[in-house]
Amino acid sequence: MSEFVVLPKRKNEAWISEFSTENLKLSLRIKNIIHVEKTPYQDLLIADSYEYGRVLLLDGAFQLTERDEFCYSEMMSHVALCSHVNPEKVLIIGGGDGAILREVMKHQNVKRCVLIDIDERVIECSKKYLPQQSVAFNDLRADVKCMDANKFIQDAGEKFDVVIIDSTDPVDFAATLFQAKFYDAVRKIMNDDGMLVELTESPFVDYKVMTQATKQMREVFPIVKNYWGAVPTYPSGMWTYGIASLKTDPSLPVREVQNTRYYTNEIHKASFILPPFLKELLS
Amino acid sequence: MSEFVVLPKRKNEAWISEFSTENLKLSLRIKNIIHVEKTPYQDLLIADSYEYGRVLLLDGAFQLTERDEFCYSEMMSHVALCSHVNPEKVLIIGGGDGAILREVMKHQNVKRCVLIDIDERVIECSKKYLPQQSVAFNDLRADVKCMDANKFIQDAGEKFDVVIIDSTDPVDFAATLFQAKFYDAVRKIMNDDGMLVELTESPFVDYKVMTQATKQMREVFPIVKNYWGAVPTYPSGMWTYGIASLKTDPSLPVREVQNTRYYTNEIHKASFILPPFLKELLS
Repeated sequence: MSEFVVLPKRKNEAWISEFSTENLKLSLRIKNIIHVEKTPYQDLLIADSYEYGRVLLLDGAFQLTERDEFCYSEMMSHVALCSHVNPEKVLIIGGGDGAILREVMKHQNVKRCVLIDIDERVIECSKKYLPQQSVAFNDLRADVKCMDANKFIQDAGEKFDVVIIDSTDPVDFAATLFQAKFYDAVRKIMNDDGMLVELTESPFVDYKVMTQATKQMREVFPIVKNYWGAVPTYPSGMWTYGIASLKTDPSLPVREVQNTRYYTNEIHKASFILPPFLKELLS
Repeated sequence: MSEFVVLPKRKNEAWISEFSTENLKLSLRIKNIIHVEKTPYQDLLIADSYEYGRVLLLDGAFQLTERDEFCYSEMMSHVALCSHVNPEKVLIIGGGDGAILREVMKHQNVKRCVLIDIDERVIECSKKYLPQQSVAFNDLRADVKCMDANKFIQDAGEKFDVVIIDSTDPVDFAATLFQAKFYDAVRKIMNDDGMLVELTESPFVDYKVMTQATKQMREVFPIVKNYWGAVPTYPSGMWTYGIASLKTDPSLPVREVQNTRYYTNEIHKASFILPPFLKELLS
Protein backbone atom coordinates (compact mmCIF):
# COMPACT_ATOMS: atom_id res chain seq x y z
CA MET A 1 0.00 0.00 0.00
CA SER A 2 1.29 3.47 -0.73
CA GLU A 3 0.05 7.01 -0.96
CA PHE A 4 1.08 9.83 -3.20
CA VAL A 5 0.35 13.17 -1.60
CA VAL A 6 0.74 16.62 -3.05
CA LEU A 7 0.50 19.34 -0.43
CA PRO A 8 -1.34 22.12 -2.25
CA LYS A 9 -0.19 25.03 -0.10
CA ARG A 10 3.51 24.33 -0.46
CA LYS A 11 5.29 24.56 -3.76
CA ASN A 12 7.10 21.39 -4.81
CA GLU A 13 5.78 19.39 -1.89
CA ALA A 14 4.95 15.97 -3.27
CA TRP A 15 5.58 12.86 -1.19
CA ILE A 16 5.48 9.14 -1.80
CA SER A 17 4.84 7.05 1.31
CA GLU A 18 5.22 3.32 1.75
CA PHE A 19 3.02 1.85 4.45
CA SER A 20 5.27 -0.85 5.93
CA THR A 21 2.30 -1.84 8.04
CA GLU A 22 -0.92 0.04 8.64
CA ASN A 23 0.87 1.71 11.56
CA LEU A 24 4.24 2.67 10.09
CA LYS A 25 5.28 4.52 6.96
CA LEU A 26 8.36 5.93 5.28
CA SER A 27 7.96 8.96 3.05
CA LEU A 28 10.27 10.42 0.43
CA ARG A 29 9.83 13.86 -1.04
CA ILE A 30 9.54 13.60 -4.80
CA LYS A 31 10.94 15.83 -7.55
CA ASN A 32 9.28 14.16 -10.52
CA ILE A 33 7.11 11.22 -11.36
CA ILE A 34 8.90 9.45 -14.22
CA HIS A 35 6.47 6.67 -15.04
CA VAL A 36 3.23 5.20 -13.68
CA GLU A 37 1.67 2.01 -14.98
CA LYS A 38 -0.75 -0.69 -14.01
CA THR A 39 0.88 -3.84 -15.39
CA PRO A 40 -1.02 -7.15 -15.61
CA TYR A 41 0.54 -8.05 -12.25
CA GLN A 42 1.09 -4.93 -10.17
CA ASP A 43 1.20 -1.16 -9.87
CA LEU A 44 4.52 0.15 -11.10
CA LEU A 45 5.82 3.60 -10.19
CA ILE A 46 9.17 5.18 -11.04
CA ALA A 47 9.98 8.60 -9.61
CA ASP A 48 12.90 10.86 -8.76
CA SER A 49 13.23 11.58 -5.05
CA TYR A 50 15.33 14.29 -3.44
CA GLU A 51 16.96 12.06 -0.83
CA TYR A 52 17.47 8.69 -2.52
CA GLY A 53 17.60 9.47 -6.25
CA ARG A 54 15.45 7.45 -8.65
CA VAL A 55 13.08 5.01 -6.96
CA LEU A 56 11.03 2.02 -8.14
CA LEU A 57 7.85 1.00 -6.32
CA LEU A 58 5.77 -2.11 -7.00
CA ASP A 59 2.34 -2.24 -5.40
CA GLY A 60 3.35 0.68 -3.21
CA ALA A 61 6.48 -0.92 -1.75
CA PHE A 62 9.93 0.51 -2.42
CA GLN A 63 11.80 -2.08 -4.48
CA LEU A 64 14.92 -0.07 -4.96
CA THR A 65 16.34 3.39 -4.73
CA GLU A 66 19.34 4.49 -6.73
CA ARG A 67 21.19 5.48 -3.59
CA ASP A 68 20.88 2.39 -1.41
CA GLU A 69 20.08 -0.59 -3.66
CA PHE A 70 23.72 -1.68 -3.55
CA CYS A 71 23.23 -2.72 0.09
CA TYR A 72 20.56 -5.20 -0.88
CA SER A 73 21.73 -6.21 -4.37
CA GLU A 74 25.23 -7.04 -3.18
CA MET A 75 24.13 -9.01 -0.11
CA MET A 76 21.58 -10.98 -2.13
CA SER A 77 24.23 -11.99 -4.66
CA HIS A 78 27.72 -12.23 -3.23
CA VAL A 79 27.10 -14.25 -0.07
CA ALA A 80 26.08 -17.32 -2.09
CA LEU A 81 28.37 -16.60 -5.03
CA CYS A 82 31.44 -16.14 -2.81
CA SER A 83 30.80 -19.21 -0.66
CA HIS A 84 29.81 -21.67 -3.41
CA VAL A 85 32.78 -23.72 -4.61
CA ASN A 86 32.17 -22.95 -8.31
CA PRO A 87 28.98 -21.07 -9.21
CA GLU A 88 28.80 -21.48 -12.98
CA LYS A 89 25.03 -21.46 -13.44
CA VAL A 90 22.82 -18.99 -11.61
CA LEU A 91 19.04 -18.59 -11.57
CA ILE A 92 17.42 -15.33 -10.46
CA ILE A 93 13.70 -15.54 -9.72
CA GLY A 94 12.22 -12.05 -9.87
CA GLY A 95 14.75 -9.24 -9.97
CA GLY A 96 13.32 -7.67 -13.10
CA ASP A 97 15.04 -4.36 -12.36
CA GLY A 98 18.38 -6.03 -13.14
CA ALA A 99 20.37 -4.90 -10.08
CA ILE A 100 21.05 -8.43 -8.84
CA LEU A 101 21.89 -9.61 -12.36
CA ARG A 102 24.46 -6.80 -12.49
CA GLU A 103 26.06 -8.09 -9.27
CA VAL A 104 26.01 -11.74 -10.41
CA MET A 105 27.84 -10.77 -13.58
CA LYS A 106 30.76 -9.42 -11.53
CA HIS A 107 31.75 -13.07 -10.99
CA GLN A 108 34.00 -14.59 -13.65
CA ASN A 109 32.94 -18.10 -12.59
CA VAL A 110 29.41 -17.43 -13.81
CA LYS A 111 28.94 -18.89 -17.29
CA ARG A 112 25.16 -18.53 -17.53
CA CYS A 113 22.52 -16.60 -15.57
CA VAL A 114 18.83 -17.13 -16.19
CA LEU A 115 16.52 -14.37 -14.90
CA ILE A 116 12.80 -15.20 -14.63
CA ASP A 117 10.44 -12.33 -13.92
CA ILE A 118 6.72 -12.78 -14.26
CA ASP A 119 6.25 -9.15 -15.24
CA GLU A 120 7.77 -8.11 -18.56
CA ARG A 121 6.87 -4.49 -17.87
CA VAL A 122 9.24 -4.33 -14.90
CA ILE A 123 12.09 -5.40 -17.16
CA GLU A 124 11.13 -3.03 -19.98
CA CYS A 125 10.69 -0.05 -17.68
CA SER A 126 13.97 -0.80 -15.90
CA LYS A 127 15.80 -0.90 -19.23
CA LYS A 128 14.31 2.47 -20.08
CA TYR A 129 14.37 4.32 -16.75
CA LEU A 130 16.92 2.53 -14.52
CA PRO A 131 20.15 2.39 -16.56
CA GLN A 132 22.41 1.86 -13.52
CA GLN A 133 20.44 -1.21 -12.48
CA SER A 134 19.60 -2.76 -15.86
CA VAL A 135 23.13 -2.51 -17.25
CA ALA A 136 23.71 -6.30 -17.35
CA PHE A 137 20.68 -7.25 -19.44
CA ASN A 138 23.00 -7.04 -22.45
CA ASP A 139 25.58 -9.41 -20.97
CA LEU A 140 25.92 -12.41 -23.29
CA ARG A 141 25.75 -14.76 -20.29
CA ALA A 142 22.28 -13.46 -19.34
CA ASP A 143 19.13 -15.29 -20.44
CA VAL A 144 16.03 -13.28 -19.51
CA LYS A 145 12.61 -14.93 -19.56
CA CYS A 146 9.24 -13.38 -18.73
CA MET A 147 7.14 -16.15 -17.26
CA ASP A 148 5.85 -17.71 -14.06
CA ALA A 149 8.77 -19.04 -12.02
CA ASN A 150 6.81 -22.13 -10.98
CA LYS A 151 6.31 -23.09 -14.60
CA PHE A 152 9.96 -22.50 -15.47
CA ILE A 153 11.11 -24.64 -12.58
CA GLN A 154 8.89 -27.55 -13.59
CA ASP A 155 10.18 -27.63 -17.15
CA ALA A 156 13.68 -26.26 -16.65
CA GLY A 157 15.64 -29.16 -18.12
CA GLU A 158 18.85 -27.82 -16.59
CA LYS A 159 20.39 -27.47 -13.13
CA PHE A 160 21.75 -24.48 -11.27
CA ASP A 161 24.48 -23.87 -8.72
CA VAL A 162 22.98 -20.79 -7.10
CA VAL A 163 19.32 -19.73 -7.03
CA ILE A 164 18.50 -16.18 -5.90
CA ILE A 165 14.86 -15.45 -5.11
CA ASP A 166 14.41 -11.71 -5.46
CA SER A 167 10.71 -11.58 -4.91
CA THR A 168 8.35 -8.82 -3.91
CA ASP A 169 6.81 -9.09 -0.42
CA PRO A 170 5.06 -12.45 0.18
CA VAL A 171 1.55 -11.43 -0.75
CA ASP A 172 -0.56 -12.33 -3.80
CA PHE A 173 1.36 -14.19 -6.51
CA ALA A 174 4.69 -13.88 -4.63
CA ALA A 175 3.43 -15.72 -1.50
CA THR A 176 4.13 -19.18 -2.96
CA LEU A 177 7.81 -18.26 -3.28
CA PHE A 178 8.25 -18.58 0.51
CA GLN A 179 6.86 -22.12 0.93
CA ALA A 180 8.40 -25.59 1.33
CA LYS A 181 6.60 -26.87 -1.76
CA PHE A 182 8.32 -24.21 -3.84
CA TYR A 183 11.71 -24.73 -2.17
CA ASP A 184 11.41 -28.44 -2.88
CA ALA A 185 10.69 -27.80 -6.55
CA VAL A 186 13.71 -25.50 -6.71
CA ARG A 187 15.89 -28.10 -4.98
CA LYS A 188 15.19 -30.50 -7.83
CA ILE A 189 16.81 -28.13 -10.34
CA MET A 190 19.84 -27.46 -8.13
CA ASN A 191 23.17 -29.21 -8.49
CA ASP A 192 24.40 -31.37 -5.58
CA ASP A 193 26.29 -28.49 -3.98
CA GLY A 194 23.63 -25.88 -4.80
CA MET A 195 22.65 -22.87 -2.71
CA LEU A 196 19.42 -20.89 -2.54
CA VAL A 197 19.09 -17.39 -1.09
CA GLU A 198 16.00 -15.32 -0.39
CA LEU A 199 15.31 -12.15 1.53
CA THR A 200 13.20 -12.81 4.62
CA GLU A 201 11.98 -9.34 5.56
CA SER A 202 12.61 -7.40 8.78
CA PRO A 203 12.55 -8.81 12.32
CA PHE A 204 10.99 -5.54 13.48
CA VAL A 205 8.17 -5.21 11.00
CA ASP A 206 7.06 -8.64 9.91
CA TYR A 207 9.16 -11.21 11.74
CA LYS A 208 6.73 -14.02 10.91
CA VAL A 209 7.82 -13.94 7.27
CA MET A 210 11.36 -14.48 8.48
CA THR A 211 10.57 -17.25 10.93
CA GLN A 212 8.12 -19.08 8.68
CA ALA A 213 10.23 -18.91 5.52
CA THR A 214 13.20 -20.17 7.54
CA LYS A 215 11.16 -23.09 8.90
CA GLN A 216 9.94 -23.97 5.42
CA MET A 217 13.53 -23.94 4.14
CA ARG A 218 14.61 -26.24 6.97
CA GLU A 219 12.04 -28.79 5.85
CA VAL A 220 13.76 -29.07 2.49
CA PHE A 221 17.46 -28.29 2.90
CA PRO A 222 20.10 -29.83 5.19
CA ILE A 223 21.85 -26.50 5.84
CA VAL A 224 19.84 -23.33 6.46
CA LYS A 225 21.33 -20.13 7.88
CA ASN A 226 20.24 -16.53 8.29
CA TYR A 227 22.24 -13.38 7.85
CA TRP A 228 21.40 -9.70 8.02
CA GLY A 229 22.32 -6.30 6.69
CA ALA A 230 21.21 -2.70 6.41
CA VAL A 231 18.80 -1.52 3.71
CA PRO A 232 17.83 2.08 4.58
CA THR A 233 14.68 2.32 2.47
CA TYR A 234 13.24 -1.07 3.43
CA PRO A 235 11.00 -1.04 6.52
CA SER A 236 13.09 -0.63 9.71
CA GLY A 237 16.36 -0.66 7.76
CA MET A 238 17.41 -3.98 9.33
CA TRP A 239 16.88 -6.71 6.81
CA THR A 240 17.30 -10.47 7.02
CA TYR A 241 18.21 -13.07 4.42
CA GLY A 242 17.73 -16.84 4.47
CA ILE A 243 20.30 -19.03 2.76
CA ALA A 244 19.97 -22.77 2.17
CA SER A 245 22.74 -25.06 1.04
CA LEU A 246 22.90 -28.70 -0.02
CA LYS A 247 26.53 -29.27 0.91
CA THR A 248 28.88 -26.49 2.00
CA ASP A 249 28.68 -23.82 4.69
CA PRO A 250 27.39 -20.56 3.13
CA SER A 251 28.77 -18.45 5.99
CA LEU A 252 32.37 -19.10 4.87
CA PRO A 253 33.51 -17.18 1.78
CA VAL A 254 35.97 -18.95 -0.52
CA ARG A 255 36.52 -16.16 -3.04
CA GLU A 256 36.50 -12.39 -3.30
CA VAL A 257 34.55 -10.08 -5.59
CA GLN A 258 35.70 -6.69 -6.84
CA ASN A 259 33.95 -3.32 -7.16
CA THR A 260 31.52 -3.60 -4.27
CA ARG A 261 30.36 -0.89 -1.89
CA TYR A 262 28.68 -2.98 0.83
CA TYR A 263 29.93 -6.55 0.48
CA THR A 264 33.36 -7.81 1.49
CA ASN A 265 34.39 -11.24 2.73
CA GLU A 266 34.66 -9.73 6.22
CA ILE A 267 31.13 -8.30 6.00
CA HIS A 268 30.00 -11.73 4.71
CA LYS A 269 31.24 -13.46 7.84
CA ALA A 270 30.01 -10.69 10.16
CA SER A 271 26.51 -10.74 8.68
CA PHE A 272 25.93 -14.26 10.02
CA ILE A 273 26.53 -13.07 13.59
CA LEU A 274 23.02 -12.44 14.86
CA PRO A 275 21.95 -10.33 17.84
CA PRO A 276 20.34 -12.51 20.56
CA PHE A 277 16.81 -11.21 19.93
CA LEU A 278 17.13 -12.30 16.30
CA LYS A 279 18.61 -15.69 17.19
CA GLU A 280 15.72 -16.23 19.56
CA LEU A 281 13.11 -15.41 16.93
CA LEU A 282 14.75 -17.92 14.60
CA SER A 283 15.25 -20.75 17.10
CA MET B 1 11.19 18.95 13.04
CA SER B 2 8.10 16.82 13.39
CA GLU B 3 4.44 16.94 12.55
CA PHE B 4 1.47 15.54 14.34
CA VAL B 5 -1.40 14.87 11.95
CA VAL B 6 -4.90 13.71 12.68
CA LEU B 7 -6.74 12.55 9.58
CA PRO B 8 -10.29 13.76 10.20
CA LYS B 9 -12.09 11.37 7.90
CA ARG B 10 -10.66 8.21 9.40
CA LYS B 11 -11.30 7.17 12.96
CA ASN B 12 -8.20 6.67 15.09
CA GLU B 13 -5.87 7.93 12.42
CA ALA B 14 -3.29 10.03 14.21
CA TRP B 15 0.33 10.01 13.06
CA ILE B 16 3.61 11.39 14.38
CA SER B 17 6.23 12.00 11.72
CA GLU B 18 9.90 12.73 12.17
CA PHE B 19 11.46 14.67 9.34
CA SER B 20 14.93 13.11 9.11
CA THR B 21 15.68 15.74 6.53
CA GLU B 22 13.30 18.03 4.67
CA ASN B 23 13.01 15.26 2.07
CA LEU B 24 12.55 12.13 4.18
CA LYS B 25 10.24 11.22 7.03
CA LEU B 26 9.25 8.28 9.18
CA SER B 27 5.71 8.17 10.54
CA LEU B 28 4.22 6.09 13.34
CA ARG B 29 0.50 5.74 13.90
CA ILE B 30 -0.36 6.83 17.40
CA LYS B 31 -2.83 5.39 19.92
CA ASN B 32 -2.52 8.04 22.60
CA ILE B 33 -0.56 11.14 23.40
CA ILE B 34 0.74 10.61 26.94
CA HIS B 35 2.49 13.90 27.62
CA VAL B 36 3.43 17.09 25.75
CA GLU B 37 5.61 19.78 27.21
CA LYS B 38 7.81 22.67 26.21
CA THR B 39 10.75 22.41 28.59
CA PRO B 40 13.28 25.26 28.95
CA TYR B 41 15.44 23.41 26.41
CA GLN B 42 13.26 21.52 23.97
CA ASP B 43 9.86 20.18 22.94
CA LEU B 44 9.14 16.93 24.74
CA LEU B 45 6.52 14.47 23.52
CA ILE B 46 5.66 11.03 24.90
CA ALA B 47 3.08 8.93 23.08
CA ASP B 48 1.94 5.35 22.61
CA SER B 49 2.39 4.07 19.06
CA TYR B 50 0.85 0.96 17.58
CA GLU B 51 4.03 -0.39 16.03
CA TYR B 52 6.81 0.52 18.45
CA GLY B 53 5.10 0.90 21.82
CA ARG B 54 5.78 4.02 23.89
CA VAL B 55 7.92 6.64 22.18
CA LEU B 56 9.86 9.71 23.33
CA LEU B 57 10.51 12.60 20.96
CA LEU B 58 12.68 15.64 21.68
CA ASP B 59 12.37 18.55 19.27
CA GLY B 60 10.52 16.26 16.88
CA ALA B 61 13.19 13.55 16.69
CA PHE B 62 12.55 10.03 17.96
CA GLN B 63 14.86 9.54 20.96
CA LEU B 64 13.64 6.10 21.84
CA THR B 65 10.84 3.66 21.31
CA GLU B 66 10.04 0.93 23.81
CA ARG B 67 10.45 -1.71 21.15
CA ASP B 68 13.83 -0.91 19.64
CA GLU B 69 15.76 1.22 22.14
CA PHE B 70 17.74 -1.84 23.27
CA CYS B 71 19.59 -1.80 19.93
CA TYR B 72 20.96 1.63 20.62
CA SER B 73 21.21 1.57 24.42
CA GLU B 74 23.20 -1.66 24.43
CA MET B 75 25.58 -0.66 21.65
CA MET B 76 26.22 2.76 23.25
CA SER B 77 27.13 1.10 26.57
CA HIS B 78 28.63 -2.34 26.22
CA VAL B 79 31.21 -1.79 23.49
CA ALA B 80 33.24 0.52 25.74
CA LEU B 81 32.35 -1.24 29.00
CA CYS B 82 33.30 -4.67 27.64
CA SER B 83 36.58 -3.57 26.08
CA HIS B 84 37.87 -1.32 28.88
CA VAL B 85 40.17 -3.19 31.24
CA ASN B 86 38.29 -2.13 34.40
CA PRO B 87 35.50 0.43 33.97
CA GLU B 88 34.78 1.48 37.55
CA LYS B 89 33.70 5.06 36.97
CA VAL B 90 31.36 6.00 34.14
CA LEU B 91 30.05 9.37 32.98
CA ILE B 92 26.93 9.64 30.83
CA ILE B 93 26.39 13.01 29.16
CA GLY B 94 22.73 13.34 28.19
CA GLY B 95 20.73 10.13 28.36
CA GLY B 96 18.05 11.60 30.63
CA ASP B 97 15.63 8.80 29.72
CA GLY B 98 17.78 6.39 31.71
CA ALA B 99 18.10 3.57 29.14
CA ILE B 100 21.88 3.80 28.88
CA LEU B 101 22.22 4.11 32.67
CA ARG B 102 20.22 0.86 32.91
CA GLU B 103 22.71 -0.86 30.59
CA VAL B 104 25.77 0.54 32.38
CA MET B 105 24.44 -0.83 35.68
CA LYS B 106 24.50 -4.37 34.27
CA HIS B 107 28.29 -4.27 34.79
CA GLN B 108 29.51 -5.34 38.21
CA ASN B 109 32.79 -3.48 37.64
CA VAL B 110 30.97 -0.17 37.68
CA LYS B 111 31.24 1.45 41.12
CA ARG B 112 29.89 4.86 40.23
CA CYS B 113 27.99 6.32 37.29
CA VAL B 114 27.37 10.06 36.97
CA LEU B 115 24.60 11.08 34.55
CA ILE B 116 24.48 14.72 33.47
CA ASP B 117 21.42 15.89 31.56
CA ILE B 118 20.82 19.56 30.98
CA ASP B 119 17.06 19.06 31.01
CA GLU B 120 15.56 18.00 34.33
CA ARG B 121 12.15 17.57 32.70
CA VAL B 122 13.43 14.70 30.51
CA ILE B 123 14.51 12.85 33.64
CA GLU B 124 11.30 13.57 35.55
CA CYS B 125 9.05 12.58 32.64
CA SER B 126 11.05 9.42 32.02
CA LYS B 127 10.69 8.41 35.67
CA LYS B 128 6.96 8.92 35.37
CA TYR B 129 6.19 7.61 31.88
CA LEU B 130 9.10 5.36 30.84
CA PRO B 131 9.48 2.83 33.67
CA GLN B 132 11.38 0.28 31.56
CA GLN B 133 14.00 2.86 30.65
CA SER B 134 14.31 4.80 33.92
CA VAL B 135 14.59 1.73 36.14
CA ALA B 136 18.21 2.38 37.16
CA PHE B 137 17.78 5.90 38.50
CA ASN B 138 17.32 4.28 41.92
CA ASP B 139 20.58 2.34 41.72
CA LEU B 140 22.82 3.43 44.60
CA ARG B 141 25.78 3.70 42.22
CA ALA B 142 23.97 6.33 40.11
CA ASP B 143 24.56 10.05 40.67
CA VAL B 144 22.18 12.11 38.53
CA LYS B 145 22.83 15.80 37.98
CA CYS B 146 20.78 18.28 35.97
CA MET B 147 23.23 20.80 34.59
CA ASP B 148 25.23 21.85 31.56
CA ALA B 149 27.74 19.12 30.71
CA ASN B 150 30.42 21.70 29.83
CA LYS B 151 30.18 23.19 33.28
CA PHE B 152 30.32 19.81 34.99
CA ILE B 153 33.40 18.82 33.03
CA GLN B 154 35.27 21.99 33.97
CA ASP B 155 34.69 21.52 37.67
CA ALA B 156 34.43 17.73 37.86
CA GLY B 157 37.19 17.13 40.38
CA GLU B 158 37.19 13.41 39.54
CA LYS B 159 38.20 11.19 36.65
CA PHE B 160 36.28 8.61 34.65
CA ASP B 161 37.10 5.36 32.87
CA VAL B 162 34.31 5.50 30.32
CA VAL B 163 32.43 8.55 29.03
CA ILE B 164 29.25 7.99 27.00
CA ILE B 165 27.87 10.97 25.13
CA ASP B 166 24.18 10.30 24.56
CA SER B 167 23.28 13.59 23.01
CA THR B 168 20.42 14.71 20.84
CA ASP B 169 21.23 15.52 17.21
CA PRO B 170 24.06 18.05 16.84
CA VAL B 171 21.99 21.20 16.56
CA ASP B 172 21.47 24.05 19.04
CA PHE B 173 22.93 23.38 22.48
CA ALA B 174 24.00 19.82 21.56
CA ALA B 175 26.23 20.94 18.66
CA THR B 176 29.21 21.67 20.94
CA LEU B 177 29.22 18.01 22.07
CA PHE B 178 30.67 16.94 18.69
CA GLN B 179 33.71 19.24 18.65
CA ALA B 180 37.42 18.82 19.39
CA LYS B 181 37.30 21.51 22.06
CA PHE B 182 34.71 19.51 23.95
CA TYR B 183 36.49 16.19 23.41
CA ASP B 184 39.67 17.77 24.77
CA ALA B 185 37.88 18.97 27.89
CA VAL B 186 36.47 15.47 28.38
CA ARG B 187 39.89 13.90 27.90
CA LYS B 188 41.17 15.90 30.87
CA ILE B 189 38.68 14.16 33.18
CA MET B 190 39.42 10.68 31.80
CA ASN B 191 41.79 8.20 33.40
CA ASP B 192 44.89 7.14 31.44
CA ASP B 193 43.14 4.18 29.86
CA GLY B 194 39.82 5.99 29.38
CA MET B 195 37.37 5.57 26.52
CA LEU B 196 34.76 7.90 25.07
CA VAL B 197 31.85 6.84 22.90
CA GLU B 198 29.34 8.92 20.96
CA LEU B 199 26.76 8.19 18.31
CA THR B 200 27.68 9.74 14.98
CA GLU B 201 24.41 9.59 13.03
CA SER B 202 23.63 7.75 9.80
CA PRO B 203 25.90 7.51 6.74
CA PHE B 204 22.79 7.72 4.56
CA VAL B 205 21.09 10.74 6.04
CA ASP B 206 23.72 13.06 7.46
CA TYR B 207 27.12 11.54 6.86
CA LYS B 208 28.89 14.84 7.55
CA VAL B 209 28.09 14.55 11.25
CA MET B 210 29.80 11.17 11.20
CA THR B 211 32.87 12.26 9.25
CA GLN B 212 33.33 15.56 11.07
CA ALA B 213 32.84 14.19 14.58
CA THR B 214 35.32 11.42 13.75
CA LYS B 215 37.88 13.96 12.51
CA GLN B 216 37.43 16.06 15.64
CA MET B 217 37.95 12.97 17.82
CA ARG B 218 41.13 12.12 15.92
CA GLU B 219 42.56 15.54 16.79
CA VAL B 220 42.32 14.70 20.48
CA PHE B 221 42.63 10.92 20.95
CA PRO B 222 45.37 8.49 19.83
CA ILE B 223 42.89 5.69 19.02
CA VAL B 224 39.60 6.46 17.23
CA LYS B 225 37.40 3.80 15.65
CA ASN B 226 33.90 3.60 14.22
CA TYR B 227 31.35 0.86 14.55
CA TRP B 228 27.76 0.46 13.41
CA GLY B 229 24.49 -1.20 14.19
CA ALA B 230 20.78 -1.21 13.42
CA VAL B 231 18.34 1.22 15.05
CA PRO B 232 15.01 0.83 13.24
CA THR B 233 13.40 4.10 14.31
CA TYR B 234 16.45 6.28 13.70
CA PRO B 235 16.69 7.71 10.18
CA SER B 236 17.73 5.00 7.66
CA GLY B 237 18.05 2.37 10.39
CA MET B 238 21.82 2.13 9.88
CA TRP B 239 23.53 3.97 12.67
CA THR B 240 27.18 4.71 13.38
CA TYR B 241 29.11 5.20 16.59
CA GLY B 242 32.51 6.80 17.19
CA ILE B 243 34.71 5.45 19.96
CA ALA B 244 37.94 7.04 21.19
CA SER B 245 40.44 5.39 23.48
CA LEU B 246 43.57 6.59 25.26
CA LYS B 247 45.28 3.21 25.48
CA THR B 248 43.60 -0.07 24.54
CA ASP B 249 41.80 -1.24 21.41
CA PRO B 250 38.03 -0.73 21.85
CA SER B 251 37.20 -3.27 19.12
CA LEU B 252 38.39 -6.17 21.29
CA PRO B 253 36.05 -7.20 24.10
CA VAL B 254 37.68 -8.47 27.30
CA ARG B 255 34.53 -9.35 29.27
CA GLU B 256 30.95 -10.43 28.72
CA VAL B 257 27.69 -8.88 29.87
CA GLN B 258 24.48 -10.75 30.66
CA ASN B 259 20.84 -10.10 29.78
CA THR B 260 21.29 -8.35 26.47
CA ARG B 261 19.14 -8.59 23.36
CA TYR B 262 21.40 -6.94 20.78
CA TYR B 263 24.93 -6.92 22.19
CA THR B 264 27.22 -9.91 22.43
CA ASN B 265 31.02 -10.07 22.25
CA GLU B 266 30.63 -11.48 18.73
CA ILE B 267 28.37 -8.60 17.68
CA HIS B 268 30.90 -6.23 19.29
CA LYS B 269 33.69 -7.48 17.03
CA ALA B 270 31.45 -7.67 13.94
CA SER B 271 30.20 -4.10 14.39
CA PHE B 272 33.69 -2.73 13.68
CA ILE B 273 33.71 -4.38 10.25
CA LEU B 274 32.58 -1.58 7.97
CA PRO B 275 31.17 -1.85 4.44
CA PRO B 276 33.54 -0.23 1.89
CA PHE B 277 31.26 2.77 1.26
CA LEU B 278 31.38 3.57 4.98
CA LYS B 279 35.14 3.06 5.24
CA GLU B 280 35.57 5.42 2.32
CA LEU B 281 33.43 8.13 3.91
CA LEU B 282 35.54 7.86 7.07
CA SER B 283 38.97 7.76 5.41
